[in-house]
Amino acid sequence: MTDPISFLSDFGHQDEFVGVVHGVLAKLAPESPVIDVGHDFPRGNVKTAALALTRAIQYLPEGVCLAVVDPGVGTARRAVAAETPWGVFIGPDNGLLSPAVAMVGGASKVVSIENPETMIPSPGETFHGRDVFAPAAALVASGEAGLDDLGPVVAGDDLVPLLLPLTKVEGSIVSGEAWWVDAFGNVQTNVSPDDLAAIGLSPGDTVTVKVGATLHSIPWVRSYGEVPEGELLVYVDSVGLVALAVRDGRADEELNLSDGVAVSLAGRRSATAE
Amino acid sequence: MTDPISFLSDFGHQDEFVGVVHGVLAKLAPESPVIDVGHDFPRGNVKTAALALTRAIQYLPEGVCLAVVDPGVGTARRAVAAETPWGVFIGPDNGLLSPAVAMVGGASKVVSIENPETMIPSPGETFHGRDVFAPAAALVASGEAGLDDLGPVVAGDDLVPLLLPLTKVEGSIVSGEAWWVDAFGNVQTNVSPDDLAAIGLSPGDTVTVKVGATLHSIPWVRSYGEVPEGELLVYVDSVGLVALAVRDGRADEELNLSDGVAVSLAGRRSATAE
Amino acid sequence: MTDPISFLSDFGHQDEFVGVVHGVLAKLAPESPVIDVGHDFPRGNVKTAALALTRAIQYLPEGVCLAVVDPGVGTARRAVAAETPWGVFIGPDNGLLSPAVAMVGGASKVVSIENPETMIPSPGETFHGRDVFAPAAALVASGEAGLDDLGPVVAGDDLVPLLLPLTKVEGSIVSGEAWWVDAFGNVQTNVSPDDLAAIGLSPGDTVTVKVGATLHSIPWVRSYGEVPEGELLVYVDSVGLVALAVRDGRADEELNLSDGVAVSLAGRRSATAE
Repeated sequence: MTDPISFLSDFGHQDEFVGVVHGVLAKLAPESPVIDVGHDFPRGNVKTAALALTRAIQYLPEGVCLAVVDPGVGTARRAVAAETPWGVFIGPDNGLLSPAVAMVGGASKVVSIENPETMIPSPGETFHGRDVFAPAAALVASGEAGLDDLGPVVAGDDLVPLLLPLTKVEGSIVSGEAWWVDAFGNVQTNVSPDDLAAIGLSPGDTVTVKVGATLHSIPWVRSYGEVPEGELLVYVDSVGLVALAVRDGRADEELNLSDGVAVSLAGRRSATAE
Repeated sequence: MTDPISFLSDFGHQDEFVGVVHGVLAKLAPESPVIDVGHDFPRGNVKTAALALTRAIQYLPEGVCLAVVDPGVGTARRAVAAETPWGVFIGPDNGLLSPAVAMVGGASKVVSIENPETMIPSPGETFHGRDVFAPAAALVASGEAGLDDLGPVVAGDDLVPLLLPLTKVEGSIVSGEAWWVDAFGNVQTNVSPDDLAAIGLSPGDTVTVKVGATLHSIPWVRSYGEVPEGELLVYVDSVGLVALAVRDGRADEELNLSDGVAVSLAGRRSATAE
Repeated sequence: MTDPISFLSDFGHQDEFVGVVHGVLAKLAPESPVIDVGHDFPRGNVKTAALALTRAIQYLPEGVCLAVVDPGVGTARRAVAAETPWGVFIGPDNGLLSPAVAMVGGASKVVSIENPETMIPSPGETFHGRDVFAPAAALVASGEAGLDDLGPVVAGDDLVPLLLPLTKVEGSIVSGEAWWVDAFGNVQTNVSPDDLAAIGLSPGDTVTVKVGATLHSIPWVRSYGEVPEGELLVYVDSVGLVALAVRDGRADEELNLSDGVAVSLAGRRSATAE
């Protein structure tokens, strides 16, 4: 009857922010289970949180997604609710929601949250997570409000897109970048297995990975166990993207990689010919 | 039928302490939802956690509040349960509970938790969060116990108060202090907008903020968006107190402020006359 | 009808891993409450997490325990489900589960999780927490699957044991080691009060504690309050093991102790005679 709410933010756990939002949800949607997708994404980093939400969304129970990474809070950015085949996404319209919304099939309706009756009055500066987004999520999850109750429809149902780097396949080289270093030091790139297939590589091949001016010859395997401890591997990770790892080690340190650093991949021959 | 339990502590997440308390609550009050207000407050810092609870309490669903920041565990401090209009507060009687209890209208009854039948026997030193406070919270939340089952009434229904610094308004200057730096670097003071009104200031004015020997002229605005990026602002924060921030930056670093540091505020004229 | 799930891992909170597992559990066992035992144990450290689970298990509601600290993921280690008097333990068979399983009475049946129908297909490398362990835990908790549905029985119902150091009582000296420093700096040893009794010590005695070449004379008391602030104490901790603490301080720093460091305890006389 009442939908689960999946909640993601950059509030961290140092203060009571996450707890207060849970309090608001519990008051307004007491029957809705709340799933914490994560709250320790780097503060104000919309891209990192948006990618995490995109990786997570298909594993979250359909219902309401409340996402708040909002470096522009208090400025003109829109607060939105977007209806999709998965459910309703609620958060700031700054690119945070758009990749996950696209992943689940796009928005059939987007409204701008503007109705003060669906908000909690604040004694001062508005804490949007607590006063605007959480009540909207709870009212929608509990069926107390529909999207039209939150505010006017956004023409074209458009969300602000997140600008994500594309890979470039030129001849026998794929150029991409590192876009997620997980807590274990594994480095996900924006390169897909299809990109590697396009330059003639398949699992079992050796891949030449170039970071800065350094070339590494790394086997493309299916999982950690196929290389010795301490060795690098190229693999398709649990999200379906090409990633780099060190068995029982950290690939980010081994390869000097962090978010946004350029990486190119090639077959053995083409790399030596470069 | 069974009340929600809001749980705050300084246990952190490094060990299994928070999880074990959740286990006890789930065993003894399986129908009670549990809201984690926060567990990463500085260890043993009663004041920081008490202020966080005070900020949070009105957003938490009425029921039971279990709060454990207990540097005096194992000494003579009392374990208490306090009945209030909001619900029942349970924790050590060391000042942690009193500001939030006062915020919701005060305690109509306070008992000292002493009944061993409402506790979990420990194989050694008592882990009060697990063995004393959690079972008391669960029994009260589930209706299995009333306050009188926990122990004797405390005469006068008095809780140990938390000594909080008061602001001082002298002539055209308000003297206060920083009392919360949040994770984003915003600095909340103990100064209220009424204090500023008392020295003739209103929103839109420029405020002279003095930290140590340094004077800063800062506009009093309603929200971040009203100043350029990187600039300081004075505003009334989401809790209703006067705070200092830097748009897209950290006011604590910019102003060299941390918990307990003295801050005085004045109008432009009085400051230059100082 | 549907069992609670207690969930422990070393995933940390930096990424969305914990949230994604919660999502899978919420989708497949929507009625099961989930208790987070802890997720910030040192990465890949099976022993630390296994000890934490052993300390916690008796306080967790009977049902399903999902534990994932899995440095050997992607290698030949087995994924198992173990039936015990407490309930079902699910995780990698690398020593993580065995001490807690032993604590609750041992396993009456162990199966190797191999049935692809109880797993979530992955677009690449399998994320075992998400794709193998979480669905198994959810299906068992919700009653949708029995152990036999997960895979074949492991002969002998044997789990890989965790090798834990034993204490040695020789004459009037107990030799052991530090095996848990909690977040407050208290140091738990593997020494039991029975070991101390075996060398003739009882509460109230002074214990000679030897770390490296340094001897410390420390009173054996029941709780913090019995020594002055800043002083060392020996006590039986809330789990029933001999531990070292400093009242309002950190014993790990005072004694230069960390996980695995040797500690010997003796009565006053025997130590000076050493």
